[in-house]
Amino acid sequence: MREDADAPVAEGADAVPEVRDSDGNLAHGFREAIRAAIEARDVDRLRALTGDLHEADMGDLIEELDGDERRRLIEMLGSAFDFTALTELDETVRVGILRGLSPLTIARGMRDLASDDAVYILEDLDEEEMAAVLEHLPAPERVALRRSLDYPEDSAGRRMQTEFIAVPPFWTVGRTIDYMRETADLPETFYEVFVVDPAYRLVGSVSLDRLLRTRRTMLVTQVKTEHLKGVKATDDQEDVARLFERYNLVSAPVVDDAGRLVGVMTIDDVVDVIQEEADEDLRALAGVGSDEELSDSVAYTARSRLPWLVVNLGTAFISASIIGLFEATIEKMVALAVLMPIVASMGGNAGTQTMTVAVRALATKELSSHNARRIVSREVLVGLFNGLALACLLGLIAGAWFANAQLGAVIASALVMNMMAAGLFGILIPLAISWLKLDPAVASGVFVTTVTDTVGFFAFLGLATWWFGA
Amino acid sequence: MREDADAPVAEGADAVPEVRDSDGNLAHGFREAIRAAIEARDVDRLRALTGDLHEADMGDLIEELDGDERRRLIEMLGSAFDFTALTELDETVRVGILRGLSPLTIARGMRDLASDDAVYILEDLDEEEMAAVLEHLPAPERVALRRSLDYPEDSAGRRMQTEFIAVPPFWTVGRTIDYMRETADLPETFYEVFVVDPAYRLVGSVSLDRLLRTRRTMLVTQVKTEHLKGVKATDDQEDVARLFERYNLVSAPVVDDAGRLVGVMTIDDVVDVIQEEADEDLRALAGVGSDEELSDSVAYTARSRLPWLVVNLGTAFISASIIGLFEATIEKMVALAVLMPIVASMGGNAGTQTMTVAVRALATKELSSHNARRIVSREVLVGLFNGLALACLLGLIAGAWFANAQLGAVIASALVMNMMAAGLFGILIPLAISWLKLDPAVASGVFVTTVTDTVGFFAFLGLATWWFGA
Repeated sequence: MREDADAPVAEGADAVPEVRDSDGNLAHGFREAIRAAIEARDVDRLRALTGDLHEADMGDLIEELDGDERRRLIEMLGSAFDFTALTELDETVRVGILRGLSPLTIARGMRDLASDDAVYILEDLDEEEMAAVLEHLPAPERVALRRSLDYPEDSAGRRMQTEFIAVPPFWTVGRTIDYMRETADLPETFYEVFVVDPAYRLVGSVSLDRLLRTRRTMLVTQVKTEHLKGVKATDDQEDVARLFERYNLVSAPVVDDAGRLVGVMTIDDVVDVIQEEADEDLRALAGVGSDEELSDSVAYTARSRLPWLVVNLGTAFISASIIGLFEATIEKMVALAVLMPIVASMGGNAGTQTMTVAVRALATKELSSHNARRIVSREVLVGLFNGLALACLLGLIAGAWFANAQLGAVIASALVMNMMAAGLFGILIPLAISWLKLDPAVASGVFVTTVTDTVGFFAFLGLATWWFGA
Repeated sequence: MREDADAPVAEGADAVPEVRDSDGNLAHGFREAIRAAIEARDVDRLRALTGDLHEADMGDLIEELDGDERRRLIEMLGSAFDFTALTELDETVRVGILRGLSPLTIARGMRDLASDDAVYILEDLDEEEMAAVLEHLPAPERVALRRSLDYPEDSAGRRMQTEFIAVPPFWTVGRTIDYMRETADLPETFYEVFVVDPAYRLVGSVSLDRLLRTRRTMLVTQVKTEHLKGVKATDDQEDVARLFERYNLVSAPVVDDAGRLVGVMTIDDVVDVIQEEADEDLRALAGVGSDEELSDSVAYTARSRLPWLVVNLGTAFISASIIGLFEATIEKMVALAVLMPIVASMGGNAGTQTMTVAVRALATKELSSHNARRIVSREVLVGLFNGLALACLLGLIAGAWFANAQLGAVIASALVMNMMAAGLFGILIPLAISWLKLDPAVASGVFVTTVTDTVGFFAFLGLATWWFGA
């Protein structure tokens, strides 16, 4: 029962259904076809379905299967399973799969991987599991992987690929091209060729387009680019990402402390770093751990989010105790209790706006000491202007609601004060945290809302007490 | 008075100081040397200082100068000024500089630009200014730029470079390489060569490393890669970025509706899109407009942030009116007014945690209909567990503070309810907004905090009224 390729794909049909739907998500039909093949233990059908699958699609597919199906999929594919797909998974899922495989199977699967992918997979395992896998690898690979794993986490040395092409300075363009044609074991993809001296110190690099448009008789040193600033293996990956972004790089040589070429960072790794970095800022601002993943369990997620909520509970008690100072006033005038959250909430929002802009500008190095003064005064003035505009609105409505013009005036004044405080502390707090060499994204939020809550309640209830008498 | 290159650079010295300091910021000494040269009208010194400057460094330098210095810098550099640097600037700064230049000067500066950079600069101008610049360009360039500008904003057609190398299918690898050696007017950088049929429809592409490792006699069609999914010129740049990220692309052909090759998107543009996109999510969540820049004026910034604050004022009134329902209870028991912001604030924070995770997971397509149910129940359970943990703490402290165990029990119960509501609505709201094909980052925050404030006040004050009597 063969189906026409254009006909809608019936379940269990032999045709390979579309992998992705029009929104770019993994197609329902494809996932179900895979599930059916796993269920039916139909190895041929499964291999036909996944034969041309890109590692990224395979990764997404694995994430959508349940634990048992994942295990059986990898088992049934055997040597046809490309371990590169594991680099596309959430850490939790990846570690879960690796724990279900024997060290020998992992070592076999890793033989065809680029070194950076192999390191990426290995670094999630604990020391003992890692050693068991490395044992099954040939000595040269084992030594190279060990060396990469010795670099600190999140360093260029961890992310770099140790496969690259390096030629001596006296080679011509023609000889370099011939070398590439004749050598079977070249890196899977590469964008430049490096020029090194006899001690393997980096002299420069030649991009492939440069190589292709130059006469064969030219020396590589004549067409090389010198790198103003090489990437050191110990450099933090975020600094490397900043360099790639700033100078629009596609690949960059990585050198050790002695200036010797040890690897190459490529843009695909950097894109992941940029994505992660922005994600971390976003999560940190919301009080979510940077390593939380969608596949995490309830218990793990709850535990990882709890600390920030406890901190917030502490700061909430600070605001509550401010309100407690004015119990007598509130007892006389309950309208204050009704209105007070408005002042605090508006300040919190304005403070968050300023803080978000500040945190991102600090991360991208747009905000630094040379322009800090201008931005601080801009933020305070923005707070003043928006405070005045909103105060008119709030004062009128609150005054009308409780038929009390004086109450309207009091809340309007308190709002202006709190909006200015929001602008001032919304930028000073991240600046101060970054001057202390800490990450402003992580801690700014707590401090800013504590300030705006405290100032908000104190200004409003204090003004009211002073105006109407305790 | 010549200084040694290694000696510390004195102001006004002839040596070129380091461009960047150890933190990667533009070095103070370099900026001041530029300022001094501008002040002294010393064109030779200025050209010596900026001769080797990368466009990104020039961009950062221009941002740190004031308006008058910017104008004089560009004037003094004359034809030595590389207009590519303008693409590295904030839009406000760029438009400010362009408005100060004659259309002829802009047109001259744009002649050497890659087409995507030219479009990037032109698209900020209004129709009339744009027409004036285009008029001064040679007809072929003018037509090509017009065509790119006709594509919708933020589409691949706007971002693509129209310079690329395309060869017919019957060419050999050798002929293709020879063609590149002999042609002077090649794109500035390129990573692949495209194969097109006589109607210029895309047949496939050959990466440069593939070209270099293949025998000269092979036909390009024998080594080409077929693109599973070409990028259409009308595709949104964010969809293109997702494709580059997923499949680790460095460049991709762009085709028109008829499948004809019209340009190429490269990774450097995509990196900017990824960065912008993450930034937009972050700002949207905080209620800051996506086009706000650090160089914007007080008035502009205040105006752009006001709308969201007005919306927040409206929602604050909703919470206030909930409190208003329970005035009588509060009057009898002021402790409620002191404690009530705690319940609301905890819910707000928990809701923001859930919402942030949901918004990013939706943006990266990790969260979709197939796993939504699991994530919703996970979030509600996380809310329940953290709610129970925090409720014990809060109940004890609040009960002890007001020497009222029953009050402690009431606030503890209200907290658990609000934490569960935070988990539930923290994910349902972004999901619902994305099902409506709107951007969940923009509107989720308002709705989520409105829900957590409302539920928080209602649960706490309602329970207290029921328990203690009105």
